[in-house]
Formats: sequence, structure tokens, C-alpha cells
Amino acid sequence: MEMNIALLPGDGIGPEVIAQAVKVVKAVGQKFGHQITFKEGLVGACAIDATGDPYPDATHEICAASDAVLFGAIGDPKYDNDPKAKVRPEQGLLRMRQKLGLFANVRPTFTFPSLVHKSPLKLERVDGVDFVFFRELTGGVYFGEPRGRNEQGTKAFDTNVYSKEEVVRLARMGFEAAQKRRKLLTCVDKANVMATSRLWRETVQELAAEYPDVKVEYEFVDAVAMRLIQWPKAYDVLITENLFGDILTDEASVISGSMGLMPSASLGSKVKLFEPIHGSYPQAAGKDIANPLATVLSAAMMFEYAFDMKEEAQAISDVVNLSLAEGVVTEDIAEGGKAYKTSEVGDWLAAKIL
Amino acid sequence: MEMNIALLPGDGIGPEVIAQAVKVVKAVGQKFGHQITFKEGLVGACAIDATGDPYPDATHEICAASDAVLFGAIGDPKYDNDPKAKVRPEQGLLRMRQKLGLFANVRPTFTFPSLVHKSPLKLERVDGVDFVFFRELTGGVYFGEPRGRNEQGTKAFDTNVYSKEEVVRLARMGFEAAQKRRKLLTCVDKANVMATSRLWRETVQELAAEYPDVKVEYEFVDAVAMRLIQWPKAYDVLITENLFGDILTDEASVISGSMGLMPSASLGSKVKLFEPIHGSYPQAAGKDIANPLATVLSAAMMFEYAFDMKEEAQAISDVVNLSLAEGVVTEDIAEGGKAYKTSEVGDWLAAKIL
Ligand SMILES: CC(C)[C@H](C(=O)O)[C@@H](O)C(=O)O
Ligand SMILES: CC(C)[C@H](C(=O)O)[C@@H](O)C(=O)O
Repeated sequence: MEMNIALLPGDGIGPEVIAQAVKVVKAVGQKFGHQITFKEGLVGACAIDATGDPYPDATHEICAASDAVLFGAIGDPKYDNDPKAKVRPEQGLLRMRQKLGLFANVRPTFTFPSLVHKSPLKLERVDGVDFVFFRELTGGVYFGEPRGRNEQGTKAFDTNVYSKEEVVRLARMGFEAAQKRRKLLTCVDKANVMATSRLWRETVQELAAEYPDVKVEYEFVDAVAMRLIQWPKAYDVLITENLFGDILTDEASVISGSMGLMPSASLGSKVKLFEPIHGSYPQAAGKDIANPLATVLSAAMMFEYAFDMKEEAQAISDVVNLSLAEGVVTEDIAEGGKAYKTSEVGDWLAAKIL
Repeated sequence: MEMNIALLPGDGIGPEVIAQAVKVVKAVGQKFGHQITFKEGLVGACAIDATGDPYPDATHEICAASDAVLFGAIGDPKYDNDPKAKVRPEQGLLRMRQKLGLFANVRPTFTFPSLVHKSPLKLERVDGVDFVFFRELTGGVYFGEPRGRNEQGTKAFDTNVYSKEEVVRLARMGFEAAQKRRKLLTCVDKANVMATSRLWRETVQELAAEYPDVKVEYEFVDAVAMRLIQWPKAYDVLITENLFGDILTDEASVISGSMGLMPSASLGSKVKLFEPIHGSYPQAAGKDIANPLATVLSAAMMFEYAFDMKEEAQAISDVVNLSLAEGVVTEDIAEGGKAYKTSEVGDWLAAKIL
């Protein structure tokens, strides 16, 4: 099969981890007989530096013409503490999500037996955790209008807005995922305070009738923030709006002890996007020490979700597990054993696939 | 001294835990020679059931005429899963906060050595945790207008709004608290996305110059949701807006293992309010099993914050510590030892004070 993949390395450690994923994807292509072409685009701080725009049109064209996007990370501290900056890297990310129609961010949390002891939680709380968030990604307070300041600049406002269709399409993905898993769906909202949340809850209640095999629970976002730490094993599939999802998926990402390994997918239209959940980690940039496994596993998700190639996805998961078992890992998880370089891990994985 | 205290037991276990705090407060009054009068008001689901209004005017008058309010908990499941309910208990809580001008919710998180092993986190992560949130409580998306639905009901919207003065007065409390503590202030926002957050960050940056002894850090809400679990000891004082504070303080409440013991204060005007952070726990209502210690410690905070009576506050903390040391505790923390009833714990504490 022919596969056109857009590569957006982004900022910080992005280019280094993407480079390893490319090695692995190429190896998979060679082994399984796929013809894979890559086209690279700029996004984030590096795109601002080069073009003034964090998501240039040229990049969008590359993505829109591709079958799938492999994305690294964006963000640079020089933009973070300047609240008056006119252009910020994150705007590129948000525009990209919107223009590509990526309305669902899928973030699994699961444990690797060899890493679960690194969890900040006690073993019995997290061992075997396995849930997945479906975060709405192109609506809510991230895009709602009006937003800004009054004339004097002394008052600021944001608008959170959701239409019923936006809730329906995201919730359906959650219901369908739950049907293939443990059949429990948790709708996370703040329906005791927010009008948007009441629309979410009401809409999910209506849809539930169509999925009688799925048990639906409704929980307030503050309660979920607690229970994710207390009893993470209680969850299966969680659906939520954009801002709540931002907070809770990041909270969830640390509980398994495998944050450096967690992949994610953004779905919703023809073009799907895959990225590690970790950030641009500027302190480590250029040092060849960043853990590439989350990006490599994002490539595995790409084979499964964008190309329906389960065997190829499995081949990648298998070599990742092998690298963990054999200790071919970067310093963040080396634990006294030899710490391999980012590039060495990538080479090793690619070689094992072939 | 004469002290007029408004009692708002509320719903669920509220009345039971408030009754124990009253015993303790009376004992303190007797011992230290204060003349304490209590007036009780309805709030929450029980107020709706009795009057149709979750925060009746009569209750507001009792509170407004008092020196301090002791509050239990509100909420009843019968209102939670009805997104179309016209009146909800929570509206009473929100109206109360706003009408009493309680713009700052102060939520400490600390550990009790005898309970820290109950934390879901590993001991080395949480032992000695000691931070405090200042959550803005009368602004943001909780009160912003417009909010509601379009005519067809197919679109919902909420408005998050903050004025500079709202940020300033909350932030000053945080800076002042930090000066008395470890001199670290963390401003929690989402300045990479939200206009309100940029106003927060900008305002805090300006104020920082007035508090040169305080180190100020700026962190995104999603990052804090992670770091609260990874390295909770890294924090001292955190300030944040209403909705972020709702989520993060609940998350924080479970990390110390002492959730049933955590008190809180709401400040901002002449009348101050004190309440346990736990909810109305309807499953336990009427069973005389709920843990009253968080409410008793809220009464301790009342003596300190509302009446500047540090000795009285200390007397309460001391007997609470004694009850923990001697195992005079309710079933949730009894751990194989004898489980005392809610009312027995209250009697014991009051007797020990005298
Ligand atoms: C960088 C930021 C705008 C972004 C978000 O809030 O969506 C990030 O936190 C994420 O979760 O991908
Ligand atoms: C009951 C609810 C409206 C309330 C809030 O969101 O403020 C509660 O969660 C709290 O934190 O006191």
C-alpha cells in the first residue's frame, strides 16, 4: 500500500523523537511491503521563528494532502511567560486541530509491568490500570467567541460553547469504544454549574438508549480529578469536553508510571494525527537523551487507526516491549542499567523489526 | 468575647458533623470564657424541600448578621442527574458565596503522620506535604454572563470573566500567605489558551514587584494537575481561578490520605465561612458513622481566621491529634481498631477540651 505521511517534528525534543519513529515506520514499510513517503512541515515556535506563523499554510497543505500526520511536540519557554505575545506556538496547534477537523483526542492510559513501579501511586492502585479518554478537541473555551479584553484592558473574558452535534459525534466515539472494551462509559462534566455541561449530560443521556450494552456513569469533573488517583482502575472509557480533557488527561498521564511512553491519536476526519502526550521538554532538546517510545507507539497507533493495519501496529508494540525487557532504553527509565541514546533506541527498534 | 455563629448544616451527613463541631465549639467557649450563640439556617436540598429556595433570604439574614458561618455540606443525588431541574442545591451555595462576598476559598493540604499511609501515593511522595490553595470563589465561569442555550436548545454557552481587581484581591491574599510560609507562590492558569488566564498572569506579574521576598512560579493548569501527584511537596501557596481551583483542590484533597480531615475557610468580607472539604455523602446520612474531624478542624480555622484566637484554635487541633493518637475515630479511619460513632467522637473531643 502507498502511504503519505506528514511529519511535523515541532519544537524541543520533537525532531529527535520523530526521527526515531521514522526509522521504525520505514522498517515496518520495508518488512510489510508498503511504499511510504514522508513530507515534513514546520509547526510551533520553530515555524514562528522561520515564517512568523505557528501553522503556516504550507504546513497545512502538506497535512491535508497526507493520509496521516506524525507530530512531535511544540512549545518554547520564551513564549510562555509573555502574556502579551501576539503569536504563540500553541495557536498553531489549535489552528491545526481545527483546520484538520481533529475533534477527538484519544488518550489511552495503561501500564507496562516493567515500569509500573515508577508510578507515584501505590502498586495496588495502578497495577493493571487500563482506561482511555476521548477528549473533545475543537470546541469549548479553546475556540469560543467572544474572547479578549474590554477597551481599558481591565476585564478579560472567554466563552465556552458547545453544539449538540459536537457532543454527539464525540460521545458516539466513546460509546463505540466502550462496546469494544469493558462497556463502561463515564461522562465527565460540571453539570451542577455550567450550561455547556448540562447540554453534554442531556445529550449523552439521550444517546445512551442506542447503546443498551454500555453502562453510563455521570461524574463531575472535580470528583473525577479525585477518583483518577484513588481508584483509576474504576474507569474504562471517559468522554469529556476540551478543557476538562486537557486537565484530566494530563493528570491521568502520570499515574501509570509510563508517561514517557504514552501515545495519543487525534481523529475526526480523513486525516488523522498521532503524537506522544509528553511536551517539548526544552531542557533536553538536542541532547539525544529524550525517550522516543511514546512517539514510536504513536506510530503504532497510526498503523492501526489510520490504515487499519493491526499486524504492523502489533509489530511495533512487540519491539517496544522487547526494548523494555532487554533494557534498551533512555536514561529516564534506565534505572542504573545502561542508558541508551535516543538515536540508539531508534536504531535498535528498527533493526529488530527487520 | 461574644460570638454569633451561623450554623448551616445542609444535606446528607452535614447535620451530623456540624452537631459535633458545635459540641466542641461550646466546650471551647466554656473553657476560654466566650459567650457563643448559634443560629441555624437552611441551605441546599433541604432548603429547597422546605421553601423552594436553596438559599432562602431568612438564611442569608442569619449569615449576614453573624460573625462567622459554620457550614456542613450540600447536595442530594436526586438533583444530580436531572439536567433540566430548575432549582438545584448548588445554586444556593453559589448564591451564598456571592452574597456574602466570600471571594477566597482557602484549602490547606497537609499530612497527619498517623494517616499518611492511607494516601494513594507512595509515602516518600507525600510525607510532609504542606501546601495551601487560594481558590477564587465568586467569579469566573461560575457567575459569568451570558450563559444558557440558544432558542432551539441545540447550543449551550458559558462565559468566563475576570476583572483585574478580582485577581488582585485574591492574589494579594496568596502573596501574604506565602510571606508567612515558605515564600513560594504558584500562579496556576491556562495563559496559553485563555484570555482570562492571561489577565491573571499579567496581574500577578505586576504584583510580584511588591513582594520581592516571594518567589513566583507560573504553571499551566494541566501541568499542575500532573505535578500535584508527582511532586506535591514542591508546592507552598497556589492561587488560581474558580473552576481550576474546584478541580485542583479536589485532586489535592486525596493525596494526603486525610481527606476526611481537611478543613477549609472562605474569606473576603466581614463574615467568614468554614466548612469541611468533603461532600454530603448521602449514603452515610443518618447512620452516625461520618467522620466529624474535618468539620471540627474547620471550627478551629474559624477561631483563628474569624476571631484571631490562636489559642482556642490550637486547643481544638490538640484534641483532634489526641483522638487520632488514641484511636477515638470513626470507621473510615479505624483500621481494625474500634470504630466510634460520629456522636461519640464529638462527645469525646468536647470532654477532652474541658
Ligand atoms: C499546548 C496546549 C494549547 C495544549 C492544549 O491545551 O490543548 C496541550 O496542553 C495539549 O493538551 O495538547
Ligand atoms: C457543589 C459545587 C457547585 C461546588 C463548586 O463547584 O464550587 C463544589 O464542588 C465545591 O468545590 O465547593
